[in-house]
Amino acid sequence: MANCDKELLRQVRVLKPKLEHWEVAPEQQVAFAADSTAWQGYAAIGVGPVAGVLNRPFAAGERFLLDFGEHSVGRLKLAMRTTGKPADAPVRLKLLFAELPQEIAEADRPFTGYLCRSWIQEETVTIDEIPATVVLPRRYAMRYLLLEVVGTPDRLVFDDIRFIAQSAVGRRLPPPPPGVPERLARLDAIALRTLRDCMQELFEDGPKRDRRLWLGDLYLQAKVDRVSFRRFDLVERSIALLAAFTSEQGQVVSSVYEKPVPAPGNWLADYPLLFPALIREHTQAAGGAEFAARYYDTALRQLEPMRQSWGDTPCPHSEHWAFIDWSEKLDKTTALAGVYLFGLRNAAALAELLGRESDRAALLAEAEKRSLRLRRELRDPRTGLFVSGPDRQLSYASQIWMILGGAVPPEDAGTLLRKLASAPEAIRPVTPFLHHFLLEAWAVAGEFEQLFRHLQEYWGKMADCGADTFQEVFDPDNPYRTPYGDVRLNSACHAWSCAPAYFIRRYRDRIPG
Amino acid sequence: MANCDKELLRQVRVLKPKLEHWEVAPEQQVAFAADSTAWQGYAAIGVGPVAGVLNRPFAAGERFLLDFGEHSVGRLKLAMRTTGKPADAPVRLKLLFAELPQEIAEADRPFTGYLCRSWIQEETVTIDEIPATVVLPRRYAMRYLLLEVVGTPDRLVFDDIRFIAQSAVGRRLPPPPPGVPERLARLDAIALRTLRDCMQELFEDGPKRDRRLWLGDLYLQAKVDRVSFRRFDLVERSIALLAAFTSEQGQVVSSVYEKPVPAPGNWLADYPLLFPALIREHTQAAGGAEFAARYYDTALRQLEPMRQSWGDTPCPHSEHWAFIDWSEKLDKTTALAGVYLFGLRNAAALAELLGRESDRAALLAEAEKRSLRLRRELRDPRTGLFVSGPDRQLSYASQIWMILGGAVPPEDAGTLLRKLASAPEAIRPVTPFLHHFLLEAWAVAGEFEQLFRHLQEYWGKMADCGADTFQEVFDPDNPYRTPYGDVRLNSACHAWSCAPAYFIRRYRDRIPG
Repeated sequence: MANCDKELLRQVRVLKPKLEHWEVAPEQQVAFAADSTAWQGYAAIGVGPVAGVLNRPFAAGERFLLDFGEHSVGRLKLAMRTTGKPADAPVRLKLLFAELPQEIAEADRPFTGYLCRSWIQEETVTIDEIPATVVLPRRYAMRYLLLEVVGTPDRLVFDDIRFIAQSAVGRRLPPPPPGVPERLARLDAIALRTLRDCMQELFEDGPKRDRRLWLGDLYLQAKVDRVSFRRFDLVERSIALLAAFTSEQGQVVSSVYEKPVPAPGNWLADYPLLFPALIREHTQAAGGAEFAARYYDTALRQLEPMRQSWGDTPCPHSEHWAFIDWSEKLDKTTALAGVYLFGLRNAAALAELLGRESDRAALLAEAEKRSLRLRRELRDPRTGLFVSGPDRQLSYASQIWMILGGAVPPEDAGTLLRKLASAPEAIRPVTPFLHHFLLEAWAVAGEFEQLFRHLQEYWGKMADCGADTFQEVFDPDNPYRTPYGDVRLNSACHAWSCAPAYFIRRYRDRIPG
Repeated sequence: MANCDKELLRQVRVLKPKLEHWEVAPEQQVAFAADSTAWQGYAAIGVGPVAGVLNRPFAAGERFLLDFGEHSVGRLKLAMRTTGKPADAPVRLKLLFAELPQEIAEADRPFTGYLCRSWIQEETVTIDEIPATVVLPRRYAMRYLLLEVVGTPDRLVFDDIRFIAQSAVGRRLPPPPPGVPERLARLDAIALRTLRDCMQELFEDGPKRDRRLWLGDLYLQAKVDRVSFRRFDLVERSIALLAAFTSEQGQVVSSVYEKPVPAPGNWLADYPLLFPALIREHTQAAGGAEFAARYYDTALRQLEPMRQSWGDTPCPHSEHWAFIDWSEKLDKTTALAGVYLFGLRNAAALAELLGRESDRAALLAEAEKRSLRLRRELRDPRTGLFVSGPDRQLSYASQIWMILGGAVPPEDAGTLLRKLASAPEAIRPVTPFLHHFLLEAWAVAGEFEQLFRHLQEYWGKMADCGADTFQEVFDPDNPYRTPYGDVRLNSACHAWSCAPAYFIRRYRDRIPG
């Protein structure tokens, strides 16, 4: 059973943000045309102005499809009346909200997902009193809306259709730093829209599906927030909610629910190891000594279960599953060892900030000792690349985390990463989460041309595919890739994908000219 | 355009009742078995206790069917949780509420109705936060509930399922007068449950479909209320809302909406002619002189448009459609003349109550004069029965309204009605509305054995068919009879069907022993 820290839950209540709201009007009527060159095979084609939908009578069975021009999160507002005499019956509407055209174009395909189908944003609503201006009670993440009139007395007229968008930070995205090339400025805006739409009362991972606060995602979100919206209160609220729940061994929970009541979600092996870095980075940017002192013990405790279970093997064990990346064939042991080293070194840096010299020394000594052994036992003597598991598997994940964990000196990092490029058997990153850490690894190597090239290749391709926000899963070679059995469950706006804004802003002086 | 009396609308606001609420627990799980001996071909068969549904885990795709044991009107309350860890996805439920088994058993039949299909009480709801106790926002009229779990994380458990019933008068039905035979006592209870469930913030015609206040229905509802619940405030509120809207000729509107804003609905030829009787009867029972004085002019004005347009023909004309009964082949002109006479005589009686002697005399004189001419021109000299229209059509409707309008002396009434029995070509009543007035005609004739025989035959048959409340349309020879193109639109609880309670209570001393 998890421990629950009531004082931290009190802070969660105190720090509850007031959301900003704004109205988004639809931009145009669209149709989704089958188009093999478009992302997931469907292109949104303008078929008429919104004026063609407003103020015109609809009969039961009629439908229309609107593009609101921008991804946003919130509620739908409809102003409706019927023609002629007072409405003598309820009005029933069927709605399907979508982030991507495919979710609507393939709405009738049988559901094959492993997750709950209620994530699909379909709704049937009945409005008893007409005329009415109603705001539907549930929240959606959407850019497109398919609306069908199921039943109406006489004809139904929409006088207004609006989306009441919401986020903790309002609509406006911070402008890119001066001098950023246009293409990168575009990626920056998409990244910040992604983060904005995930910044609700907590940092959500995806506002369409899951909607939860995850420790790993928060670590990346806080990084991007620090160089853009700077809503440190929301970061601290999110940290408090996660840290409120710890395992018997003191591990912070990896995902958490706020509603209906705060409750722990998943326990992972790797996410808690990012906690020291999250605390260290927030302390330096905003939190100060008081914040650091509050979480110092917790940060150090994240290392203990793995330290104790590690024993005399080259790699750590964990009773929990390590995420690392969505890849079934990936052997994660070497990467997990790297995440542990990353935790150790960040804990040492946090100890230094608080003047805890002996802690710092012990943590660094452990990091050096383990790094030495990892280099000795897991590095292929022929290639110099790290391998993982009994089959000595080669992967980006292993190199990335050996680099970020400091198992190799920074000057070796570039060599490792470049060698991967000529190892086609090396398992590549799948999620933007691991792609983010690949950029971090290039930053450690000081190879910013590589960093921005990869950023432009991966996130740039998402943008070229029409992304309005960055997706949870993006595999340019397989647009239907999904870890959930049905691509409609994928989130098209997912916080762990907002890396571009961080790298563009943090390293704007290193952007190749 | 209608005139609107602001002072009457103010009274409508002042008289708004506070509804009573009570909880109805489901009685058992049922299945609807095809059974040619059951009403509409489906029998509800108990298949297990409610305990078999509560506290057991349901997977997506599972469904159950509950019988709440009694028709009621209100909202559904569900207490839900998921098994195991906190719910990581919304729960989606599909619900179908039904008054009669057929509505659920034939739910998948294509809709063929002329009215709006949104009257069908189907709902898909998504609950984002689980565990939760939710009360669904819309109101239903139901006895049966089909619930399907569309989507749930883990398994879904219902800890409680209740229906929060509501009416202006609470759950309890006034007990029948002492000594009423058991079979009539049963009809009395069904009638009063029907009325109870129609007594909401106004006297509704049917709480499932239409849900409107109609002048003709109110006339009957007020009669039954007077001998049972005695909620005279609700009668006066309903009268005020109807009388607030009048045509340029001063006709009271025949149906009216209260929400979203008070607005006139339908304008009929016959319903306004019942207004003088409604005012006269309520004055005598409860309203007193002040009430009578408020509506006296309006009551008399209901006769004027027809008086002026009548001219030198035996029967009246009206620019509006006369309801009389749901029967396409019925010629309504003679019946309408009878309703007019009924209005005249009730207006005269109202004048008498207020000491308006000259009005009384003039109204009665007109009634006598017109009665004479109707007898002379519309009575078949061979049979003595009244005919209607150019084809001299024979119908119950014509005889009933000639009797109730006093076109023949009461001592002739029984003869007319009995002669109909041996005239198979005579068009019979269809709706309980006209069946009610048939009972009234037997009462005028003083033939109470006939009255109670017909009551037991017609309403008793509804009860034998399993009725919990009396239906809008009941044709024992055609259970699928509907005026709306789809029998699922029929209302199984309809106020104009609550006659039994009136006759049993008003004439309890005349019930044959």
